[in-house]
Amino acid sequence: MNSLGKQLRVTTFGESHGPAIGGIIDGFPPGFKINFDELADFMARRAPGSSPLVTARKESDMPEFLSGISSDGITLGTPIGFIIRNTDTKSGDYDEYADKFRPNHADYAYLKKYGIRDPRGGGRSSARETANWCVAGAIASQWLASEKVDVKATLTGVGNIKITIPFEKITNVSSKELFSVSPEEEMKMHNLVAETKAKGDSVGGEVSCLITGLKAGLGSPVFDKLQSRLAAAMMSINAAKAFEYGLGSAASSSFGSETTDLIESPNADGSLRLATNFSGGIQGGITVGVPVYFKVHFKPTPTLLIPMPTINEKGEKVILNPKGRHDPCVAIRAAVVVEALAALVVADMMIQNEGTQTAGFSF
Amino acid sequence: MNSLGKQLRVTTFGESHGPAIGGIIDGFPPGFKINFDELADFMARRAPGSSPLVTARKESDMPEFLSGISSDGITLGTPIGFIIRNTDTKSGDYDEYADKFRPNHADYAYLKKYGIRDPRGGGRSSARETANWCVAGAIASQWLASEKVDVKATLTGVGNIKITIPFEKITNVSSKELFSVSPEEEMKMHNLVAETKAKGDSVGGEVSCLITGLKAGLGSPVFDKLQSRLAAAMMSINAAKAFEYGLGSAASSSFGSETTDLIESPNADGSLRLATNFSGGIQGGITVGVPVYFKVHFKPTPTLLIPMPTINEKGEKVILNPKGRHDPCVAIRAAVVVEALAALVVADMMIQNEGTQTAGFSF
Amino acid sequence: MNSLGKQLRVTTFGESHGPAIGGIIDGFPPGFKINFDELADFMARRAPGSSPLVTARKESDMPEFLSGISSDGITLGTPIGFIIRNTDTKSGDYDEYADKFRPNHADYAYLKKYGIRDPRGGGRSSARETANWCVAGAIASQWLASEKVDVKATLTGVGNIKITIPFEKITNVSSKELFSVSPEEEMKMHNLVAETKAKGDSVGGEVSCLITGLKAGLGSPVFDKLQSRLAAAMMSINAAKAFEYGLGSAASSSFGSETTDLIESPNADGSLRLATNFSGGIQGGITVGVPVYFKVHFKPTPTLLIPMPTINEKGEKVILNPKGRHDPCVAIRAAVVVEALAALVVADMMIQNEGTQTAGFSF
Amino acid sequence: MNSLGKQLRVTTFGESHGPAIGGIIDGFPPGFKINFDELADFMARRAPGSSPLVTARKESDMPEFLSGISSDGITLGTPIGFIIRNTDTKSGDYDEYADKFRPNHADYAYLKKYGIRDPRGGGRSSARETANWCVAGAIASQWLASEKVDVKATLTGVGNIKITIPFEKITNVSSKELFSVSPEEEMKMHNLVAETKAKGDSVGGEVSCLITGLKAGLGSPVFDKLQSRLAAAMMSINAAKAFEYGLGSAASSSFGSETTDLIESPNADGSLRLATNFSGGIQGGITVGVPVYFKVHFKPTPTLLIPMPTINEKGEKVILNPKGRHDPCVAIRAAVVVEALAALVVADMMIQNEGTQTAGFSF
Repeated sequence: MNSLGKQLRVTTFGESHGPAIGGIIDGFPPGFKINFDELADFMARRAPGSSPLVTARKESDMPEFLSGISSDGITLGTPIGFIIRNTDTKSGDYDEYADKFRPNHADYAYLKKYGIRDPRGGGRSSARETANWCVAGAIASQWLASEKVDVKATLTGVGNIKITIPFEKITNVSSKELFSVSPEEEMKMHNLVAETKAKGDSVGGEVSCLITGLKAGLGSPVFDKLQSRLAAAMMSINAAKAFEYGLGSAASSSFGSETTDLIESPNADGSLRLATNFSGGIQGGITVGVPVYFKVHFKPTPTLLIPMPTINEKGEKVILNPKGRHDPCVAIRAAVVVEALAALVVADMMIQNEGTQTAGFSF
Repeated sequence: MNSLGKQLRVTTFGESHGPAIGGIIDGFPPGFKINFDELADFMARRAPGSSPLVTARKESDMPEFLSGISSDGITLGTPIGFIIRNTDTKSGDYDEYADKFRPNHADYAYLKKYGIRDPRGGGRSSARETANWCVAGAIASQWLASEKVDVKATLTGVGNIKITIPFEKITNVSSKELFSVSPEEEMKMHNLVAETKAKGDSVGGEVSCLITGLKAGLGSPVFDKLQSRLAAAMMSINAAKAFEYGLGSAASSSFGSETTDLIESPNADGSLRLATNFSGGIQGGITVGVPVYFKVHFKPTPTLLIPMPTINEKGEKVILNPKGRHDPCVAIRAAVVVEALAALVVADMMIQNEGTQTAGFSF
Repeated sequence: MNSLGKQLRVTTFGESHGPAIGGIIDGFPPGFKINFDELADFMARRAPGSSPLVTARKESDMPEFLSGISSDGITLGTPIGFIIRNTDTKSGDYDEYADKFRPNHADYAYLKKYGIRDPRGGGRSSARETANWCVAGAIASQWLASEKVDVKATLTGVGNIKITIPFEKITNVSSKELFSVSPEEEMKMHNLVAETKAKGDSVGGEVSCLITGLKAGLGSPVFDKLQSRLAAAMMSINAAKAFEYGLGSAASSSFGSETTDLIESPNADGSLRLATNFSGGIQGGITVGVPVYFKVHFKPTPTLLIPMPTINEKGEKVILNPKGRHDPCVAIRAAVVVEALAALVVADMMIQNEGTQTAGFSF
Repeated sequence: MNSLGKQLRVTTFGESHGPAIGGIIDGFPPGFKINFDELADFMARRAPGSSPLVTARKESDMPEFLSGISSDGITLGTPIGFIIRNTDTKSGDYDEYADKFRPNHADYAYLKKYGIRDPRGGGRSSARETANWCVAGAIASQWLASEKVDVKATLTGVGNIKITIPFEKITNVSSKELFSVSPEEEMKMHNLVAETKAKGDSVGGEVSCLITGLKAGLGSPVFDKLQSRLAAAMMSINAAKAFEYGLGSAASSSFGSETTDLIESPNADGSLRLATNFSGGIQGGITVGVPVYFKVHFKPTPTLLIPMPTINEKGEKVILNPKGRHDPCVAIRAAVVVEALAALVVADMMIQNEGTQTAGFSF
């Protein structure tokens, strides 16, 4: 199905080359004033053409809101319907692909599942869908800010250039300044992307996300663990191949004696204080009041501007000659998508939690 | 909530030190004969005490089935209720923990969420819950076998000992023999666990899972991607810190030109043939008819048999002196849990798919 | 939440006086050709202004489809997004209501729930929402026709004029001709509505629905009984106050000896033959292969063109002077809405059933 | 599926003649002390053999709780698992039915759906399942009492003996005394049941339910209307044929001018005051702070102690000779089941609502 979330649920629609994409945000709290300028900034971070390094496809990604918001921008508590018209659908570029199966793309899988595919583009598998997520995520993010919760994602690796951020040292909100990428590091990554693009090749990348301001008690001990929800959302993003939080995949190489987050005397405000944060802010599926962080790994863009052999719908060998716009590193634009989905997951769980949580415990 | 799955849904209950744990398997197809011996073998793989290296806690993990199965072992299509009595609940061992917060455990998170915790054990956060999953997973696994689908998970790493399996070369079912661990490799891993245990320390590990026999067309292009469902399930397992499929986290360091799964002429039976399988058998969230594989990383057991400082419920500094049974590497017993959950996810999606899929496409 | 259905799920949005209403139809089978003329006919049955007896509010109710349908009208298996622009929103008429609470309306309830209400109309409580349901229901209905299932609803009562249809005699599809209303009966009902309208009063009505062509085995024995799903959908319709199927409310006055549906020798095609159909085609929550029928009772339109005392948002006594368009009997236009929702429920359960049902039994 | 509810979800299992029935109550708030004596009283109201007029089948219906409750009876916030052993399963009585289809029963429908049926009883279609609902409902009811919400259901009609309760006059909680049945009326109903039983016949009945103490704002304007949820739950009860609330089925015969609930000056506590309550306490799907009431109609018990013609699984004509225990009027025992399900629906929506509702509005 095409829905994400439980109490705050986003349902989306739209093929990349149809008249429009769009969605419905159901369960958003009433009485919240939306900042449309901030929303535009959020959308701009995802938009194609935002940098010479990403695809030049230009689209006005700003949604038209159709319901759920009063004329002065206040949410009504009713479903927020929105659409984004597809304006730059040069389907000519896709003629090349009409009956060929592109490697590493969803073309074949899609046709097997549905028995029909729209020859004009990737259909639902296009990354254009992520614009819908960003609309919803931007609004969720604003609401989270009003609840003192901050979600921030950034590109922290391209190819073999990796930026090491010592997240496990971030045990309270004020350490957030650690979460930054220096101009030099950014330059290195962009240079690698530029070189890769020049060759018609593509390269993978990783995105790190830090969530601060979450109170202890969010999540569940069994199937609704916070990390389970985050992983499900992140693995919905096109090209995502791995999800890790806290210690992450390094966990399997670690010893307990080296990665225990010792508990110190509580903070003055009665909250938990940890010496380190290898846990990633989540213990037993539930937040403990220290920052949450995770990482998502993206594969290289499957489309290369290099001819390659493949087959067509008749099973015949053909040569694929990709041309047109080319986004050599999807991870660049994926950062804001990670942020959008993380905001949606966390907001959903916070809204749901209010209906189930007791006052809990304090020191 | 305590449910996993959509059409085949497992709902569970049970604290580790209450009278029993158990669950309800809803949506299982009628008319299927359950093999109880195979079920017992499956449960035995998870059971504590199955090796000198895992915790000595002994429990008869065999479930009592209360409904949904006829007297001759045929499923009725109705919900399958089962319970597993808790027989070996030496709660004395837990007195030490009664009002202390164990580091890296769910103790604090739990108390914050619920405002109450059962002093006799980890409650729902105990890995005892995974016995419920194995009951359901064992049955799902048998059903999958009848549909020619095989799910197999194995320990492929402990600490810095990693077994490299060239999954990306597995492009058809007959290559399954690649998925094995040699006795020497197993010995190395077990030696490391034994050394670690002797020190009272614990160590992480990784589990690899291979699913063969899946036809093309399983999954969805947006939020119900197969990898999203698998990730959500895997990140529900206690101590799991990372999920990766196909190229996995190596994807972020790769170039597209090196990791493209070229499409060759179709197989004789009309199925897709790929030169390599960096995709992990899933493209655009949907299976393409080649083997699916993924990996889960587990952190070291949080309980060490080493005294360590912590605080109690009053916020006072105290020393924690863990004692009793000790399972130094949770990843060992987690392999069968990975297999159980993967079987449940795949069976659920196959049952759901029948209600939504068309005949699809063939060469 | 604003969704109906499980595998075929409709999610809607839209205030009556905002820019547009619309929805997403998720889970609709791929490869089905939509007949847009039939769709227009279906929508026309619900449209205001379709008869002198219903409200004169004129709206082009035809949806704009934005996704999920190919350019030649074939469904793609992906979510079908659509919108209907609100073009005739004379919000001036609503000034009278701006801060007054209309009796029997949702005004007060709405404000209590959300803390905000759009002064320009009934918001989500407006019957305009039912246009969304009709779009989805019309498409579901076409799909059902392709599966030989027919859903038909008609007005069978207005005020004390009741048309008695001996549904309990309909034990096979060919008896469907019983389900008709004579021109004389229709005239009587319309005369009563006209008289009522002339007085500025309103009157209730009842709608009967007959579903033929359903095979045995649809539904579930416990919480997903067919009648439970139908009742939930019908009680979602504005002004619906009662749902009854089969014997209905007469059941409580009946004796078992008079209302037993005796089972006769099977039909030539191996299907069940009943002597009567007091069951309404459903036994134990599951269809048995004979026609299903039910009835929905609607209250009179709450808005009367008669001044009446009420209070405003300050709690002060005021006089409400309703004016403008007036639909004295909502049941007239509700018939097509009943049909739309019944089609959606049945189509959803049929799609879901394919994923769970075995070959079953035959004589 | 076998689940009811969203945030407070009950999932059940159990055939009437298997080892046990039972269920899982998920989402129940932590920290609530359960009164087991009150629970036993609640269960006793449903138990067979509680009156000479109902079936003599004797069962100890008290559940064994397996999780989710501390040793001193406090809920833990975790799923509450329980089982009820089947002790009095004289399956001999069912030999008569082994391969015959009982009229008005689920026998045929069940076999068509699942392709298999347990010859020892009605399987999931047995009213024994309602014992599960009563366990959950009793607990929900206790929690509601702690929130000042009272749910009460009573038998108000058997055959043509109807007790008219002027619910529409109940506009505030203190009018609850209207909701009673006099000893004379009860005697009349019981006499009719006794006469009917003596003849081996059965008779229908109706149950009325009154819910007081609900604040304004519970429910939703579209698909989650309170009446929709109540109807779905009520139509899940075995033998229920009709649901009506407020004006109910009389609505279709009414004029607006006679059934408008005029709004009076607010009560001293700022709550809404209505002159009458034809609305049944719900407007636009949402409570307005006055009592909610509804009615459920039950058909006569399908099993008569009278021989009747039917067919067997081979399609041959046979005579069915029912014998054994006989419950001539299911509506008698259904009252407590109505109460249980109503309590579950309302508690679920209250818990869910906390996660979505704002402070709302007040005069």
